[in-house]
Amino acid sequence: MSETNWLWLATIGMLGGSTVLFLVGGRRTQDEEGHTMVHGLVPLFAAISYFAMAINQGAITLSSGRVFLFARYIDWSFTTPALLLGLSMTALHGAHRRAGLVAGLLVSDVVMVITGLFFGASQDPFAKWVWYIASCVAFLAVLYVLFGPMREEAMGRDQTRANTYKLNASVLTVLWLLYPIFVILGPDGFGYWSALFTTALVVILDLVAKVAYGLLTTVGSKRITTEDLTRGEVTPAEVTTHSVPSGPFRVSRAA
Amino acid sequence: MSETNWLWLATIGMLGGSTVLFLVGGRRTQDEEGHTMVHGLVPLFAAISYFAMAINQGAITLSSGRVFLFARYIDWSFTTPALLLGLSMTALHGAHRRAGLVAGLLVSDVVMVITGLFFGASQDPFAKWVWYIASCVAFLAVLYVLFGPMREEAMGRDQTRANTYKLNASVLTVLWLLYPIFVILGPDGFGYWSALFTTALVVILDLVAKVAYGLLTTVGSKRITTEDLTRGEVTPAEVTTHSVPSGPFRVSRAA
Amino acid sequence: MSETNWLWLATIGMLGGSTVLFLVGGRRTQDEEGHTMVHGLVPLFAAISYFAMAINQGAITLSSGRVFLFARYIDWSFTTPALLLGLSMTALHGAHRRAGLVAGLLVSDVVMVITGLFFGASQDPFAKWVWYIASCVAFLAVLYVLFGPMREEAMGRDQTRANTYKLNASVLTVLWLLYPIFVILGPDGFGYWSALFTTALVVILDLVAKVAYGLLTTVGSKRITTEDLTRGEVTPAEVTTHSVPSGPFRVSRAA
Repeated sequence: MSETNWLWLATIGMLGGSTVLFLVGGRRTQDEEGHTMVHGLVPLFAAISYFAMAINQGAITLSSGRVFLFARYIDWSFTTPALLLGLSMTALHGAHRRAGLVAGLLVSDVVMVITGLFFGASQDPFAKWVWYIASCVAFLAVLYVLFGPMREEAMGRDQTRANTYKLNASVLTVLWLLYPIFVILGPDGFGYWSALFTTALVVILDLVAKVAYGLLTTVGSKRITTEDLTRGEVTPAEVTTHSVPSGPFRVSRAA
Repeated sequence: MSETNWLWLATIGMLGGSTVLFLVGGRRTQDEEGHTMVHGLVPLFAAISYFAMAINQGAITLSSGRVFLFARYIDWSFTTPALLLGLSMTALHGAHRRAGLVAGLLVSDVVMVITGLFFGASQDPFAKWVWYIASCVAFLAVLYVLFGPMREEAMGRDQTRANTYKLNASVLTVLWLLYPIFVILGPDGFGYWSALFTTALVVILDLVAKVAYGLLTTVGSKRITTEDLTRGEVTPAEVTTHSVPSGPFRVSRAA
Repeated sequence: MSETNWLWLATIGMLGGSTVLFLVGGRRTQDEEGHTMVHGLVPLFAAISYFAMAINQGAITLSSGRVFLFARYIDWSFTTPALLLGLSMTALHGAHRRAGLVAGLLVSDVVMVITGLFFGASQDPFAKWVWYIASCVAFLAVLYVLFGPMREEAMGRDQTRANTYKLNASVLTVLWLLYPIFVILGPDGFGYWSALFTTALVVILDLVAKVAYGLLTTVGSKRITTEDLTRGEVTPAEVTTHSVPSGPFRVSRAA
C-alpha cells in the first residue's frame, strides 16, 4: 500500500471514528457532554490533517530533499492538549478546579509538540537534537503532572473515578511513549525506517490513540456519569437533557 | 471605486464601528461587560485585517496568477467564533454552563473557516471542492447547535432572552449564508465575479455582520441586563460598577 | 560579546529563571498554584524563543537586507498576555470574575504585539509607522485597563492585595514602556542602534521583565496567600495540598 493510500485510510478512519464517538458519547450531564465533545472533535481534527497530507498539502520538501509532513505536528498541537483536557476532566470531576495545574499540563504538552515540530523541520544536527531533547523534557513534565498531582486528585474521590483515571492515564502513556520512538527512527530522525513504513505505523498508532482510546474513555465516562446520577451528586443545572428553570439560577446544592 | 478604496473604506468603517460599539455598549454587569468587549473587539480585529489588505500585506499571488486575500480568512477565524460566543452568552445568561456545547460550537466554526482558507489557497480543483464541502458541513454543525440545543437553552428562560436569542441567531444565520455564496462565485471559487465586485460585496456584508449586527445585539443585551437588574436576578458580585466587598467572596444568592 | 552569545546568555538565563520560579513559587492554594504556573512558564517560553534565535532559526532576512528577529514577537505574543493574566489574578483574587474585562485586556495586548510584529516585518515606511502607531494605541488600551477598572478591583479588597497590585502594575508598566523605545531605535525602526546593541538591551530588559519581575510577584503572591490562609478566606476545596473530600462537592463557604 502506498503512503498516499495509508493517508487516505487514516482520513476515512478518523472521520468514521469521530462519527462513532459523537454517536455513542453521552450528553446526560455537562461533564459527559464535555467529554463527548473533546473525544469526538479530536479525530475530526486529525481527519482534516490527514486529508491535507493525502492530497499533498500538508508537506514541504526541505532543502536536503527530505519531505517533511508538518501537518502531523499541527494536528498533534491541537489534539494532544485536547486528550489531556479530557483526562483532567476525569480526574477533576469536570470541575473548574486546579486551573493552574491544568494550564501547566496543557502548555507543557504544547511545548512538547512545538519543539517536536522544530525538531522535524530542522536540518542542522545540533539544532535537531536539542529540540528533540527539549521535547522529551516537556513530555516528562506532562508525565509528572499525570502521575503526580493529577493522579492524587483522581484518587481523592470515588473508586470508579480513580480506576478510570488510572486505566486511561496508563493506556495514554504507553501509546504516547511510542511516538518519540517512531519519530526518531523515521525520516525526521535517523531515517532507519522509510517514510512509507513510518507513515503506516503512525497512522495505526494515531487511530488507536484517538479513536480506540476515545472509545475506552467513553465507557469510563458513561460509568462515572451513571454513578453520579444514581447517587444524586449532580445538580439539576448540570444536567443537559432538561431545560434549565428560569429565574435566578445560582447553582444550588444537590437536593 | 478601486478594490483598494473599498478596503480602506472597510478599515475606516470597522474602526468607527468598534469605537461606537465600545461607546454605546453597557458595562453594568459582568454579563453586559463581556458582551460589550466581544462586539467591540470584533470590528477592531477586522480593521487590522482590512488595513493589512489595503496596504497589500494581506494577500499573496498564487502560482496560477490568482491573488488570494488570505487576511480575510485569518480575520474570520477570530471574529466568527467571537460572534458565536456572544450569541452563546445571550442563550446561557453569561453563565459558565454547557462548556462542552460552547466549545463544540466554536471549534466547528473554526473548522469551517480554516477549511474555507484551505479552499481559497488550493489550486487543484479536487482539493478545492473537498475543502469547500468540508467547510459547508462544519457550517451545518454550527447551525445545528444554534437551532438545536442552544436555542433550547435560550427558550428555557425569560421571554426577553428567548426573543433576543431568536432574533440574533436568525439575523446572523441569514448574513452568514451569504458568505459561502459570495466566496464560491468570486475569484477564490468559480470566478464568475471579479475580484473588485467580490471585495465590494464582502466589505458591505462584513460591515453589516460585524457593526450593524453588533449594534442589534447591544440593544438586546441592554434590554436583558435592565430586566435582570430590575428583577434582582444579578448578585452584587456580578455588578461591575460597584467595588466588590472585601472578605470571603463566595458568590451568594441575590438577596 | 557577539549577538549570538547574548542570545545564548538569554536562553540560559531564562531556563534558569524558569527553574527558580517553579522552585520558589508556592502551591498552597489554587490561586498561588496558578500564579506559580504563569510566572514559571513565561521564561520557559522565552528560553525556547531565544534558543531558536541563537541557532539562527528565529530570524529571516528581508529583501532590504535587514535581519528580522521575528521569534521575539512570537515569544511576546504568548508571554505578555500571560504576565497580564498573572496581574489580573492578583487584582481579582484568582476569581472567575470580570471575564470580559480580562479578555479585553489580553486581546488588546495581543493586538499590541501582533501589530508590533507587522511593524517589524514591514519595509514600506507608511505601513511600518501605521503599524507602530496601532501598536502604541493598543498599549494605551492595556494601560487604561490596568490603571482604571483593574486597579479599582484591586483597591476594593484588603490592603496587602491593593499594595501588591499597585507595585506590580507600576513596575511592569515602567519596564514595558522601554520596549517600544528600544524597538523604534533598533534595526526594526530607525536603526540608530546596531542589531548587537539592541539585542543586548532587549535581553537584559527581557530577563528583568520576566525573571526578576516574576520573583517580585512571587513575593507578593506568597504574602497574599499566607494572609488568606491565616484569615480563613480560602475554602478547603481551594487548597491544593489536601485531597478533596469525595461526595457532592459544590464549593461551600469557608467554615
